[in-house]
Amino acid sequence: MSRFPFSAIVGQDEMKLALLIAAVDPSIGGVMVFGDRGTGKSTAARALAALLPPISIAEGCRYGCTPDQSGSCPDPCTSKRARKVPVPFVDLPLGATEDRVLGALDLERALRSGEKAFEPGLLAKAHRGFLYIDEINLLEDHLVDLLLDVAASGENVVEREGLSGRHRANFVLIGSGNPEEGELRPQLLDRFGLSVEVRTPEAIEDRVEIMRRCGARERDAEAFAKDWAAEEDKVLKQIARGQTKLAKLTVPDDVLTDAANLCAEVKADGLRGELTLMRAARALAALKGAKAVRREHLIQVAPLALRHRLRRDVLDETGSTVRIERAISELFG
Amino acid sequence: MSRFPFSAIVGQDEMKLALLIAAVDPSIGGVMVFGDRGTGKSTAARALAALLPPISIAEGCRYGCTPDQSGSCPDPCTSKRARKVPVPFVDLPLGATEDRVLGALDLERALRSGEKAFEPGLLAKAHRGFLYIDEINLLEDHLVDLLLDVAASGENVVEREGLSGRHRANFVLIGSGNPEEGELRPQLLDRFGLSVEVRTPEAIEDRVEIMRRCGARERDAEAFAKDWAAEEDKVLKQIARGQTKLAKLTVPDDVLTDAANLCAEVKADGLRGELTLMRAARALAALKGAKAVRREHLIQVAPLALRHRLRRDVLDETGSTVRIERAISELFG
Amino acid sequence: MSRFPFSAIVGQDEMKLALLIAAVDPSIGGVMVFGDRGTGKSTAARALAALLPPISIAEGCRYGCTPDQSGSCPDPCTSKRARKVPVPFVDLPLGATEDRVLGALDLERALRSGEKAFEPGLLAKAHRGFLYIDEINLLEDHLVDLLLDVAASGENVVEREGLSGRHRANFVLIGSGNPEEGELRPQLLDRFGLSVEVRTPEAIEDRVEIMRRCGARERDAEAFAKDWAAEEDKVLKQIARGQTKLAKLTVPDDVLTDAANLCAEVKADGLRGELTLMRAARALAALKGAKAVRREHLIQVAPLALRHRLRRDVLDETGSTVRIERAISELFG
Amino acid sequence: MSRFPFSAIVGQDEMKLALLIAAVDPSIGGVMVFGDRGTGKSTAARALAALLPPISIAEGCRYGCTPDQSGSCPDPCTSKRARKVPVPFVDLPLGATEDRVLGALDLERALRSGEKAFEPGLLAKAHRGFLYIDEINLLEDHLVDLLLDVAASGENVVEREGLSGRHRANFVLIGSGNPEEGELRPQLLDRFGLSVEVRTPEAIEDRVEIMRRCGARERDAEAFAKDWAAEEDKVLKQIARGQTKLAKLTVPDDVLTDAANLCAEVKADGLRGELTLMRAARALAALKGAKAVRREHLIQVAPLALRHRLRRDVLDETGSTVRIERAISELFG
Amino acid sequence: MSRFPFSAIVGQDEMKLALLIAAVDPSIGGVMVFGDRGTGKSTAARALAALLPPISIAEGCRYGCTPDQSGSCPDPCTSKRARKVPVPFVDLPLGATEDRVLGALDLERALRSGEKAFEPGLLAKAHRGFLYIDEINLLEDHLVDLLLDVAASGENVVEREGLSGRHRANFVLIGSGNPEEGELRPQLLDRFGLSVEVRTPEAIEDRVEIMRRCGARERDAEAFAKDWAAEEDKVLKQIARGQTKLAKLTVPDDVLTDAANLCAEVKADGLRGELTLMRAARALAALKGAKAVRREHLIQVAPLALRHRLRRDVLDETGSTVRIERAISELFG
Amino acid sequence: MSRFPFSAIVGQDEMKLALLIAAVDPSIGGVMVFGDRGTGKSTAARALAALLPPISIAEGCRYGCTPDQSGSCPDPCTSKRARKVPVPFVDLPLGATEDRVLGALDLERALRSGEKAFEPGLLAKAHRGFLYIDEINLLEDHLVDLLLDVAASGENVVEREGLSGRHRANFVLIGSGNPEEGELRPQLLDRFGLSVEVRTPEAIEDRVEIMRRCGARERDAEAFAKDWAAEEDKVLKQIARGQTKLAKLTVPDDVLTDAANLCAEVKADGLRGELTLMRAARALAALKGAKAVRREHLIQVAPLALRHRLRRDVLDETGSTVRIERAISELFG
Repeated sequence: MSRFPFSAIVGQDEMKLALLIAAVDPSIGGVMVFGDRGTGKSTAARALAALLPPISIAEGCRYGCTPDQSGSCPDPCTSKRARKVPVPFVDLPLGATEDRVLGALDLERALRSGEKAFEPGLLAKAHRGFLYIDEINLLEDHLVDLLLDVAASGENVVEREGLSGRHRANFVLIGSGNPEEGELRPQLLDRFGLSVEVRTPEAIEDRVEIMRRCGARERDAEAFAKDWAAEEDKVLKQIARGQTKLAKLTVPDDVLTDAANLCAEVKADGLRGELTLMRAARALAALKGAKAVRREHLIQVAPLALRHRLRRDVLDETGSTVRIERAISELFG
Repeated sequence: MSRFPFSAIVGQDEMKLALLIAAVDPSIGGVMVFGDRGTGKSTAARALAALLPPISIAEGCRYGCTPDQSGSCPDPCTSKRARKVPVPFVDLPLGATEDRVLGALDLERALRSGEKAFEPGLLAKAHRGFLYIDEINLLEDHLVDLLLDVAASGENVVEREGLSGRHRANFVLIGSGNPEEGELRPQLLDRFGLSVEVRTPEAIEDRVEIMRRCGARERDAEAFAKDWAAEEDKVLKQIARGQTKLAKLTVPDDVLTDAANLCAEVKADGLRGELTLMRAARALAALKGAKAVRREHLIQVAPLALRHRLRRDVLDETGSTVRIERAISELFG
Repeated sequence: MSRFPFSAIVGQDEMKLALLIAAVDPSIGGVMVFGDRGTGKSTAARALAALLPPISIAEGCRYGCTPDQSGSCPDPCTSKRARKVPVPFVDLPLGATEDRVLGALDLERALRSGEKAFEPGLLAKAHRGFLYIDEINLLEDHLVDLLLDVAASGENVVEREGLSGRHRANFVLIGSGNPEEGELRPQLLDRFGLSVEVRTPEAIEDRVEIMRRCGARERDAEAFAKDWAAEEDKVLKQIARGQTKLAKLTVPDDVLTDAANLCAEVKADGLRGELTLMRAARALAALKGAKAVRREHLIQVAPLALRHRLRRDVLDETGSTVRIERAISELFG
Repeated sequence: MSRFPFSAIVGQDEMKLALLIAAVDPSIGGVMVFGDRGTGKSTAARALAALLPPISIAEGCRYGCTPDQSGSCPDPCTSKRARKVPVPFVDLPLGATEDRVLGALDLERALRSGEKAFEPGLLAKAHRGFLYIDEINLLEDHLVDLLLDVAASGENVVEREGLSGRHRANFVLIGSGNPEEGELRPQLLDRFGLSVEVRTPEAIEDRVEIMRRCGARERDAEAFAKDWAAEEDKVLKQIARGQTKLAKLTVPDDVLTDAANLCAEVKADGLRGELTLMRAARALAALKGAKAVRREHLIQVAPLALRHRLRRDVLDETGSTVRIERAISELFG
Repeated sequence: MSRFPFSAIVGQDEMKLALLIAAVDPSIGGVMVFGDRGTGKSTAARALAALLPPISIAEGCRYGCTPDQSGSCPDPCTSKRARKVPVPFVDLPLGATEDRVLGALDLERALRSGEKAFEPGLLAKAHRGFLYIDEINLLEDHLVDLLLDVAASGENVVEREGLSGRHRANFVLIGSGNPEEGELRPQLLDRFGLSVEVRTPEAIEDRVEIMRRCGARERDAEAFAKDWAAEEDKVLKQIARGQTKLAKLTVPDDVLTDAANLCAEVKADGLRGELTLMRAARALAALKGAKAVRREHLIQVAPLALRHRLRRDVLDETGSTVRIERAISELFG
Repeated sequence: MSRFPFSAIVGQDEMKLALLIAAVDPSIGGVMVFGDRGTGKSTAARALAALLPPISIAEGCRYGCTPDQSGSCPDPCTSKRARKVPVPFVDLPLGATEDRVLGALDLERALRSGEKAFEPGLLAKAHRGFLYIDEINLLEDHLVDLLLDVAASGENVVEREGLSGRHRANFVLIGSGNPEEGELRPQLLDRFGLSVEVRTPEAIEDRVEIMRRCGARERDAEAFAKDWAAEEDKVLKQIARGQTKLAKLTVPDDVLTDAANLCAEVKADGLRGELTLMRAARALAALKGAKAVRREHLIQVAPLALRHRLRRDVLDETGSTVRIERAISELFG
């Protein structure tokens, strides 16, 4: 059955915004989604990937290179012919081994010819697309750290079992987890660009609408897709415009000062807070087709960029989102 | 010895209903059976499988494909000839390794020809049938999660030890366990479609009747089977009719609203509750040969679909089933 | 040195009765022996096995099949010639690996010819005989569970390490353990058919008699065996008569009602209690050469069949055996 | 440097007695030595082994068989020629693997010829001699249990890793350990025939004498050995006489009754206590050249045979040895 | 994207000083950096490595030898031709195995030719450069110890898995970690030459400046590098001068006495404190182009050399840095 | 860089004395050094090894045999030609595997020719020299025990993984550790011959002198070695004289009585205390060129030989050294 249309998702605006920002600027550093199971988290991410236009890769390349990049690719694929493929969406299976994620010795070739060659893993598959990790808090810390390292550097460097490998791995990392079941270490959280919180919709009409749409799609998936095609097209065009705009936008000094003041006010650790804030505001402005990055863009993305970077304050039990909103109204009032 | 006839099982009506619903709509998402050992849980599941008509698979196919599906099968079996086999009933042996469940490298071929081929596991065996896991609470969480993922998606994707495999795996997952011996995580429970509770029958006449039937079958199994053939045939026809009806039934909006209200009232987390409720009511209506899905169908399946999705309420120690029944009588009077 | 004669064992009547019942009806489901080390538990089990007449197996068969069963045997042994062998008595060595118990890949053949063949394990060796597990409470739960599964189904199904094997494995499982050193889970206990309790004999004359018999046997084992040959023959004939009688005996409804009432009174969980009670009473009647199964047979085997199936009652610290005897005298008294 | 002469050991009479009894009747079941390091435990055991006359084994046999036993030996050694070798004394190295102790697949042959053959381990080496385990309480329980099983049955049965092996393994097991560093489970202790307690000698003259003898031996080991040759010969003759006498001695009924009464009085669990008492008294009588086994023999060996079989009595903190002595004086007073 | 220019790093003077000292005298023993993530720790270390002039290595050498050192190299590379390569900067990947760090059996050669050859690991790659370990407190102690041993001795000796290897490994070890997430054992800390503490800059203008520079570099990395080229060249010359000066400087006795007094006053354990103090003061004097090592040099490096070597004083909760500064002002006024 | 001269070590007299005693009589049983890191423990041991004259080994021998010993060597090296090599000093690398320490299967030969041969490990390398283990308290107990066994017996017996090996391994074991970081079990401590305690020197002039000597050596190592050559030669001659004298010295009975009395007074467990005391006094007398062993020698070595063998006395918190000194002054005072 084809994927659920992105625009047919009922509610969940914050999650959809974060995904759109990441689609415009994949270097934003991944999106962490907090929330219960059964709220459509993976559905939204999958839907966004399905919505994007296919990409073009060099024929026969196992690393998803564009034809002009093949010089820097570990595979000696000389073909200059391109092939269109859907944007990769890799779902990290629970129980996937480190070998399979990072890449490993190509056993088949080793047995046949005694040659020690590198076999690309899931990270190579996710190149230029999305890597989705459900229940990321159940993964071992060091594997999460590895994935974040690769997501940040855009390159996968493997040094183990007598193997050395290196290839491009630009992807948007999307993690999801329920904070009630054990948390990620603050160090790991800090490395995600954005975070969002999703909840089960409370309005009865929303819940009925969801059942109605699911029911309709279960009855006739093709017809359902056709009904939503126009809406999907609008989103696609918005993303394309954002990507074009992004390269031309600079962030003016007063907005940078706003960002620094906000981070200082909410006591976000380190420098990742303001750097992400700057980039997310820029991406949002691009997405909206704005001519310049303005304070209002900063304000809209602040909860997404800062929420997971706040120190717990023992004397102030207020949630992160509330503390950010309070700081915004105090500073920019 | 042939299996115990489904209709000869004394009592246990709720478990039998859940199994019949799953037989009509296998996409319902598995059945979790709570209860003590020695109450006939696996006997009922096995009996249902034995009751269903044989299925037709492509000759030589290791993945249980129908002849017309062989194009999407990993095996290059070109045969168009079909073979009749009983509905698969796979009993997950305690201590079965992940390799054996999911599939693994075909060692024999690797040693003989140096080729790295995929050897299907128990999930491939269970395709189009049942996968029964006794004492599922003793299994490791991540294996349960894997099995539920496959049951939900109908597809087994293997990414480990340098292997990539993918094949259809549509089956009804039946788990059983004793809640007194450690529970499943709420996340895992939530992914089961239905749940039932079974108990040792208390009436002396029921217990004597059970011994009498077991004794009779131990004396002459063939005669016993013959005695129950007519009853079995009735059940078989009821299931067949339900499967035919199902595709034609839609759930009217007022029943959808009932479902949403009921889930909100009992505070079921996420959206799986109402989606399952909608599907189970539809299957029950089909099984009963009803012309439309009605509130009464919803009410009958509500405990099965919602019981395992309720949050524990510290201030209300009432059991899940009682809370659902109370909500039903409050809402629908 | 030949085995100790069964009839030369001093005292321990309950254990000897349980073993005789299992010899008459091996489907009774195994015997669990509770008690200290050094009370002759394994001696009695070994003695019973040595006492039984040799069995006849197909020549060259690794699975202990009778010549007429060889069709369903995994080995392609076509020989119709039979060979007489003693009744198997397999002593599960501590530290035996799961591979060795269940069977495993035949390494030798795999190395020589690259063929993946199944090599039968201890369960195949125990077929048609006894499997004795000393200190069963020290074994891992899942291995005990596996052994009980096989004992119950009479078939060993292996699904691991890329191997699929299946062969007959009918044996009487005898476990022994000291409850002071950690208990079996109730789930596992419940799956044993019968249980007995043995103690060090207290009477000085019994203890002197034991030393005298051991001393005599140490001096001249052959003479000792000859002295007891007539007694042994009596037991052998009693077992043979019981096996013949068994098939013809049915349990009348009033005795079934007695069984159900007794199980309800002592609150035995599940249905295994009354089913075992029914079978054990039938076997005892057969062993005694009775024409019908009567309440007195039920009463004699009740402690053996129910003792290990009672829930602990926090308000009633009375031991299981006493509670069963009290219920018997209240009900039938 | 040659071993320290047995008769040159200063003091430690109880340990020396236990070793002599085991030399006369190796079926006594092993000796457990309790005590601090540095008290000469292993020195005494080694010294006894060195003192015994060489044994005769079939040439080329890896299992230490006598030429006339080679029929029952796993090795197809047809040679009838014998070779004299010293009595084996195997010191179980800490960290010895189970494979190396029990025997394992012969890797060399498997690699060269693809044949799966058994390679004997340390138990085969210890056949007809001594197996010494220092700090036995540091060994894993299941390995101790295995060793005691083999010591008791005189046969090593290996069932693991697809291997089946079986060979004679008659040896005296000597374990040593410091009870202050963790104890053996009562079950394991009970399986040792005898136990002794050794302590650092307290008398200054004994301690000086020990230094003097060690110093003399360090200066000239050969001369030292010559000085003690006559004493060693006396011990050797005493053992030889004991072995001859043993077969002819029976234990009269009044001594058996004494044994049963004593075991009942001190509440020794199980029957191993009185059986060992009977055998040890018989061996002592043989060693002393007595014509009959008498109560005095029983009394002398009682602490060695019973000390480690007493239940702890919470109301009576008296040590085991004292309790045995008190019982002796009350009964036989 | 090329590395961030060392001189464009805003603030963080102490960390930059420690890196410069290590560049002048790599035998100083590594630098431990304490502080939160996101403060530019790895950026600074990478920037320094990128700043240094390329080194010259023998062609084909896997151990980074200079052409004249190839005699003592494990590789039989006879080539006398040199090749220029950038100063190595090895980033220890989380999850790197011990094998891959130290070197291991060359599997490829072993499979092809049966030869057992050593394959150099990351330590060989880091030779003559930098080894950076992020979150060193998450590494296992014994691996940290190994790395410090190699860093101290300048030689990697491998003795494992039947392999013996030995090669030069001179590198500056840079570890970073957050003391809030578990500390290194004092023994390990003591083995680092210098330690520094970094913090998120607090001044708003610094934070804006950082965003401005990052933004500029994201827009046009090449232009950014050109802007900072002159500053970079200054630093490079300062290092080169320091390396030349170092060999000629001796530390006068009064400065040595100062060092001993200071270490005694702050109660630094062992002798590493004063030896490092002596070496760091010498390197600083060289870096500054001073003609002699003076007390002022000692004072400036004292916190870096001693901070991590102080015993915790339960009665004095003052931080290490403060205690050192107080001791300096007391002693030297 | 050549090793630091033994005589140039400032202070640390007790450690130097223990090393000299072990050089004169290597059978003394190893030296355990307690103390902080950075106090020159390994420097002293290395320095002593470097000071000793080279030894002569049979050419091509992997076990360090002298030419005349080659008959008892596992290698079939027939060469009678000797080769001079420095006294071995083996530094047990942290993380060295048991295989590599004890020796293991020669993988290379096994792969090439299918032969199972023993490949000597670090213990073979240490033969006739020193084995140094830093932070011995971090090693696993059983490995320490193994090393002490070999050190005591002078022979390495390997029984594992189907391998049997045996070769001479006479070496002085030197362990070092910080008692603040976890202690060795008393059993292990007791097996070390001598123990010493080292501390950071407190006198400022000593600390300056150490820096001065290190500084001088860093400037010009060759010149530094030449400066100390005469002092080194004196020590070398003293050792050589001690070794010659040792064989001729006996310990008179009154000194033996002194030893026994002292051990009884301080309550040293077992007999190792007085035997070591006797040997250490003899070696010290030899080292000093004395004509007879006298009480004064005993007194000087008593703390080294007994300190680590004292039971903790709960009522007397005085340190071991003080208790020994007090006993000496009471007895001989």
